[in-house]
Amino acid sequence: MQRLFDLAEIGPIEGGGSRRLALTDEDKAGRDLVVTWMRDLGLEVSIDTIGNVVGTRSGRADLAPVMTGSHIDTVATGGIYDGNLGVLAGLEVIETLIDAGVETKHPLAVGFFTNEEGARFPPDMMGSLCYVGDMTPEEAMSVTNADGDSVGAELERIGYSGPTPCPGVVPHAFVELHIEQGPVLERSRVQIGAVDSVQGILWLEFTVTGQSNHAGTTPMSMRHDAANAAAEITVAARRITAEMGSNQVATVGSLRLHPDLVNVVAASAVLTVDIRNTDGALLADTEAQLLADVERIAAAEGVEISHRCLARFDPVVFDPKVVDLVESHAQGLGRTVMRMPSGAGHDAQIMARVCPSGMIFTPSVNGISHNPAEFTEPDDIIAGANVLLRTMVDLAGGD
Amino acid sequence: MQRLFDLAEIGPIEGGGSRRLALTDEDKAGRDLVVTWMRDLGLEVSIDTIGNVVGTRSGRADLAPVMTGSHIDTVATGGIYDGNLGVLAGLEVIETLIDAGVETKHPLAVGFFTNEEGARFPPDMMGSLCYVGDMTPEEAMSVTNADGDSVGAELERIGYSGPTPCPGVVPHAFVELHIEQGPVLERSRVQIGAVDSVQGILWLEFTVTGQSNHAGTTPMSMRHDAANAAAEITVAARRITAEMGSNQVATVGSLRLHPDLVNVVAASAVLTVDIRNTDGALLADTEAQLLADVERIAAAEGVEISHRCLARFDPVVFDPKVVDLVESHAQGLGRTVMRMPSGAGHDAQIMARVCPSGMIFTPSVNGISHNPAEFTEPDDIIAGANVLLRTMVDLAGGD
Repeated sequence: MQRLFDLAEIGPIEGGGSRRLALTDEDKAGRDLVVTWMRDLGLEVSIDTIGNVVGTRSGRADLAPVMTGSHIDTVATGGIYDGNLGVLAGLEVIETLIDAGVETKHPLAVGFFTNEEGARFPPDMMGSLCYVGDMTPEEAMSVTNADGDSVGAELERIGYSGPTPCPGVVPHAFVELHIEQGPVLERSRVQIGAVDSVQGILWLEFTVTGQSNHAGTTPMSMRHDAANAAAEITVAARRITAEMGSNQVATVGSLRLHPDLVNVVAASAVLTVDIRNTDGALLADTEAQLLADVERIAAAEGVEISHRCLARFDPVVFDPKVVDLVESHAQGLGRTVMRMPSGAGHDAQIMARVCPSGMIFTPSVNGISHNPAEFTEPDDIIAGANVLLRTMVDLAGGD
Repeated sequence: MQRLFDLAEIGPIEGGGSRRLALTDEDKAGRDLVVTWMRDLGLEVSIDTIGNVVGTRSGRADLAPVMTGSHIDTVATGGIYDGNLGVLAGLEVIETLIDAGVETKHPLAVGFFTNEEGARFPPDMMGSLCYVGDMTPEEAMSVTNADGDSVGAELERIGYSGPTPCPGVVPHAFVELHIEQGPVLERSRVQIGAVDSVQGILWLEFTVTGQSNHAGTTPMSMRHDAANAAAEITVAARRITAEMGSNQVATVGSLRLHPDLVNVVAASAVLTVDIRNTDGALLADTEAQLLADVERIAAAEGVEISHRCLARFDPVVFDPKVVDLVESHAQGLGRTVMRMPSGAGHDAQIMARVCPSGMIFTPSVNGISHNPAEFTEPDDIIAGANVLLRTMVDLAGGD
């Protein structure tokens, strides 16, 4: 708990949250602090070429490590638990084993991955994608954002482009503790989520090109209004989502107009749609329906609408053995537990591509996350950390 | 024509337009150039406390002047004719009368008013509002914008807060030459518009307050999405406008989301709706329908929506004698002419509150304005300037 509060003091924002966007000075300061804690625990710290940091405690045998971890970057208006909990609980697990003199057959590793949020540079989960070899560090470093910053330049600037190669060591298993960031556990009055799957995610960016014109003298019939087309895309995304029902969600989180003036018909608009579903087929169906609507909207308004995919992740099913271990250890500790999907993207879903993986969720009060009001009860955090400890020791062959 | 091109070289933008937002360095440079031209013509130049500049040529009698003029500030992506034409045609009229040795009984005055566009500071037509006494210079100077700039500070900075008091001298009559900024004259193949009225204008700013939350884990049913509410307001404004028909227009030109991130449900949105109609009753009806829809949208989305009025101008009917003079002098010059309303706001509608006023329109190619592609044929400009000359001399009692 103390490490959570100490890390939160880096990049504090009004309301008690944190702002440590990936590869900013705040991210560097957070990284430096966590690396210091890793070294204080005697871990061997490695930094790879894209800035992923892993601290390892050797095991009795020279085998692949059982790995845990998450991320310490945040969105612009983030809470103090998202990501940080999974990294710091990993350190707590190791410290507890050291204090208790418990050794494991497999080494234990705790990592934090670069730019999991994707809030400053797309795509999200960039670091873990590089770790498993599904994105090259070169591709990642060449990513630039609207402000003209590049991942490569920022990574160099904060001094976290390390010597360890990507892809990284393939773990024996990976398990990540994370807050739910949703309302399900709290509503169900359950303390532990044994996460068995992750929603598929699709980020689409639409660019609408209309014609800038005078807001008073241009008859409605002669308009090619990018703002109106953008609004209709937003409303269409909401309508399609309602019709799909079940786990389908869609969000227009970013929308920018140009010239963005009161009395000028917008010449262009750029907006993003974040679409998620645990069912890959329904996700593809939603995408197809939205793109069809966008074509109709473009034709009706007389504008051009292009789109590109900023991120696409298929739904993920976690390793049944790992999910079973999480569930049974939660029960063994006398905690309430339920199997559930994750509505958010997590590094564990990327690690699942190379090793048996799973996740442990703890409740989020009011389901709030990506918000300074994000909060998880200390007793829930303790429960999650203990389930993580039991699961890791079990996977690593502890005595 | 040469003065138009010379002034356009101050604040040039791609595509051949101009960017001289009110009270910027570009506005100052434009003002300095026009003042130099006024002095070269021997005009007595006055600058009032809000920065309105008037150049006067004395008449045979010490009477109220017959005034013309417009503005030289532009929107961010403006053309070179909007406003500038009316000011520079006034100088051309005076120069022509000097060359021809024509005196008038009433003095002749040419002015340009501060911040007609309202693109940098609301409301538009700020300078003429102060000139007629319907806004105090103190009110105007206290206006600040999103960037934290204030009218007073910027006016001082560019050195255009002058000694002449507001309200200013009440003219004997006011007539303004302006490009139509719409497609009607071109479509009708008519060269001169005798403007008999001006659309009423209403600018509403809506602030939507929802809840920032995670785009993946928040069920649609639990969302309070400011972006979705803003989109529904935009679509509602379009729908109401279509139902009203006739001259009704509505434009959402500015929309900003916060935090404006791909994977975060928007916590807040600020958008503007520009509503215009030549019929005051229909305008009020449109406003009432929109506000009723906004209430429904707020309730359905579970967000709070507040609004404020950034600008409100009732429809204006110009002085029949001035409109008749414009029409008859156009005919006398062998030009095609039609009576028409103005779809845009102009300083002349403010001056009409204190003296007999009217306007002369020249065609805009493709109806395009507030755009670098804004263009009016030289022969149309010459026609408009000659109608302005005849009308002013007639009103001023020329020999």
